[in-house]
Amino acid sequence: MTVNLKNFLNPKIKMAKMGEYQELQAINGLEISSISADLYGDGRDDLTLFYFKDGANFAAVYTTSKITSASINWNLKIKRHFIKGLLVNTKNANTFTGTKGAQGLKEIANSLSKALTIKSSQSPEGVSDVVKITDLLFASTGVIGEEFPYLKIKNRIPELVKKLKIDQNKYVWFKAASAITTTDTRVKVAYEECKIGNKLIKISGIAKGSGMIAPNMATMLSFIFTDANIPSVFLKSILKKVAATTFNSISIDNDMSTNDMVGIFATGKAKNSKVYNVLDPKLQDFEKALHRLCLNLSKQIVVDGEGAKKFVTIKVTGAKSISMAKNIGFSIANSPLFKTAIAGEDPNWGRIVMAIGKSGENIVPNKVQIKIGDYLVAEQNMVAKDYNEKMIKKYMEWDSIAIEINLNIGNGSFTTYTCDFTHDYIDINADYRN
Amino acid sequence: MTVNLKNFLNPKIKMAKMGEYQELQAINGLEISSISADLYGDGRDDLTLFYFKDGANFAAVYTTSKITSASINWNLKIKRHFIKGLLVNTKNANTFTGTKGAQGLKEIANSLSKALTIKSSQSPEGVSDVVKITDLLFASTGVIGEEFPYLKIKNRIPELVKKLKIDQNKYVWFKAASAITTTDTRVKVAYEECKIGNKLIKISGIAKGSGMIAPNMATMLSFIFTDANIPSVFLKSILKKVAATTFNSISIDNDMSTNDMVGIFATGKAKNSKVYNVLDPKLQDFEKALHRLCLNLSKQIVVDGEGAKKFVTIKVTGAKSISMAKNIGFSIANSPLFKTAIAGEDPNWGRIVMAIGKSGENIVPNKVQIKIGDYLVAEQNMVAKDYNEKMIKKYMEWDSIAIEINLNIGNGSFTTYTCDFTHDYIDINADYRN
Repeated sequence: MTVNLKNFLNPKIKMAKMGEYQELQAINGLEISSISADLYGDGRDDLTLFYFKDGANFAAVYTTSKITSASINWNLKIKRHFIKGLLVNTKNANTFTGTKGAQGLKEIANSLSKALTIKSSQSPEGVSDVVKITDLLFASTGVIGEEFPYLKIKNRIPELVKKLKIDQNKYVWFKAASAITTTDTRVKVAYEECKIGNKLIKISGIAKGSGMIAPNMATMLSFIFTDANIPSVFLKSILKKVAATTFNSISIDNDMSTNDMVGIFATGKAKNSKVYNVLDPKLQDFEKALHRLCLNLSKQIVVDGEGAKKFVTIKVTGAKSISMAKNIGFSIANSPLFKTAIAGEDPNWGRIVMAIGKSGENIVPNKVQIKIGDYLVAEQNMVAKDYNEKMIKKYMEWDSIAIEINLNIGNGSFTTYTCDFTHDYIDINADYRN
Repeated sequence: MTVNLKNFLNPKIKMAKMGEYQELQAINGLEISSISADLYGDGRDDLTLFYFKDGANFAAVYTTSKITSASINWNLKIKRHFIKGLLVNTKNANTFTGTKGAQGLKEIANSLSKALTIKSSQSPEGVSDVVKITDLLFASTGVIGEEFPYLKIKNRIPELVKKLKIDQNKYVWFKAASAITTTDTRVKVAYEECKIGNKLIKISGIAKGSGMIAPNMATMLSFIFTDANIPSVFLKSILKKVAATTFNSISIDNDMSTNDMVGIFATGKAKNSKVYNVLDPKLQDFEKALHRLCLNLSKQIVVDGEGAKKFVTIKVTGAKSISMAKNIGFSIANSPLFKTAIAGEDPNWGRIVMAIGKSGENIVPNKVQIKIGDYLVAEQNMVAKDYNEKMIKKYMEWDSIAIEINLNIGNGSFTTYTCDFTHDYIDINADYRN
């Protein structure tokens, strides 16, 4: 393929780094198309269609915000577990856009169902199928409250459907992964393989998100595609379980979007033997692969946190419960004082103490042990005996910082991922809309 | 007085602005002394003693952090409601300093009780009194986890007691208000008068705090002195009530200190007629004056928020309860995305929508009305009809921004005060300890 991707990409995406990205594989039963509806005014791709000719089982988790976008409201009304397409737009969140936003989305759905029905009737296999609007899901991301540019999107539907590609080579995936981004400076892609019975299963996933990221069920966009044959109801329970320790274990700024969604779509084309329940041992390998993939995407989101220069892993162990460990982990991960100290490469562990204290969890201060990297910095309610600030300061210069807190009062543990808080976060967000 | 204050002040304090500060009055029965124990190494005052020759009734509210300083632990053990002195040091928090920190504090208490007992025996009135260590309260603020420099402090106790001043002119107050600061760039002082019965009552208050400020019972240092004669138990209930809508209605960075305390000390020297219960109408004027004073100090803390350029008032009305209004107010006040938009003078009201949504409160989206200044920006789940971005952008250039959210589902309301999130916050906190 000799296409110059540069013309289509989000200009913030660092092209030079394309070689660093994992290569995603085509998923049988999926077709992808990304084009520009000129929502940004610079010609970058902003509209992406994922089409399942023979349908796909699916499951999704959504933001827990009490204010949600028209697209999420739409998806929540779809009660079936088998869909045909997913349309994603960036630039405009279609949130707080009133009845006009909801009506605009419906017009787009009508156009898309018609265009896909026509495409289906032209199928070389001669099999025709009516695509209903209830076969379609939607996702939007971007500015809240601005008028939803539904006409611009609607007018591009025929072209979008025309450009659907069955062969998802790495350029197609890269293009789609870029088309769903906003302030991201990297695309987020991940690929895993596993077995269900004796069949090889492929899982290709993309994600978007770098600000407005906080822990609460799917606070970003991520779309995962597999050729596995798994009923939607099992997909749902596996996705929820996996998200708890992946997408829901990261925090960038403790702000939660009105629009976010993680979805998994399974075309069934791998033709693995039927799975009868969610505890079927045949699914173990799949769950593990999905977990690796989601953790990989989650970490990519943190690394690309708005303005982030450092990746921080916070492991809390010895808690009375997982919930206690998680609360303390996020109390640290969300503390602006902790995050600015990380940015300043200052081993100011007192701020970790502060954040543990403010969590409100009933810890026992003189049992707490705090480590930065491999260095014990505090225990017995005071600085550690062998504390060597110089060595720890050296360690803090690394790109990836590990913090470990052992509360020593139980067996609960949880790992949280976050980034530092830098000048660039302020620059990116002080005037985001321009 | 011809003393050059500059030599004693926190060098971050803007001297030129002294003329802007309110003049505090002397409180009969109080003596103050501020000196340097050289904790900063630059000679600035860092140690302040408030001494009540004939004792004072008092009440205090403390941080709700689960990890507290040795000084707060000390104060919590004092069960009496009548004290003789309060010693405040900056630079070192005496938190997570182990048994050594607690023992150091005890040694200081011993020295101070001896020095004050000697002073009492030298009283020109010939009345001698033993000052016990349980007559003393302590407050510390500064870096967590560093060894508590108790010897440096202890060695300066005789000098500190020697310099006690009965005549608290504005320089004495300004010096004390500076001596309790850390990253502050302004001292915080406030004065009020009121009547209890036919007696004039004076209230002089000082406060400290610019980072690590979040809503939860006393997240800063503030010491308030009055000559009123009010039993400690009534002082306590009035202080708690007043703090709820003043010190506990502000947020700078959502981080909560391990050390903070608001205390009120009443010498009784105004000799007002006895108050028999907290609902005594005689106390109404006092409660109102104390509320004005605390709100004034709270706003001064917000204005001096680390790196803050703008003061933001967030009023939430029409909530089902005060707690709902408060939760939503703080969800907005603590949102980094909202605070960076304020810094960028960007009327990105979508971030207010986001923060309302993430609060988790059961609002009704299409009933919500959002105002920036006097401009209605959103209602009926979308942008307001007469929305004029240009005019609102102009308004956002002011130093003081008012946001009003009417949820239109009840009568609960709460007002929160915060500041914007700027580059300077990162600069101040990335390498705070150096």
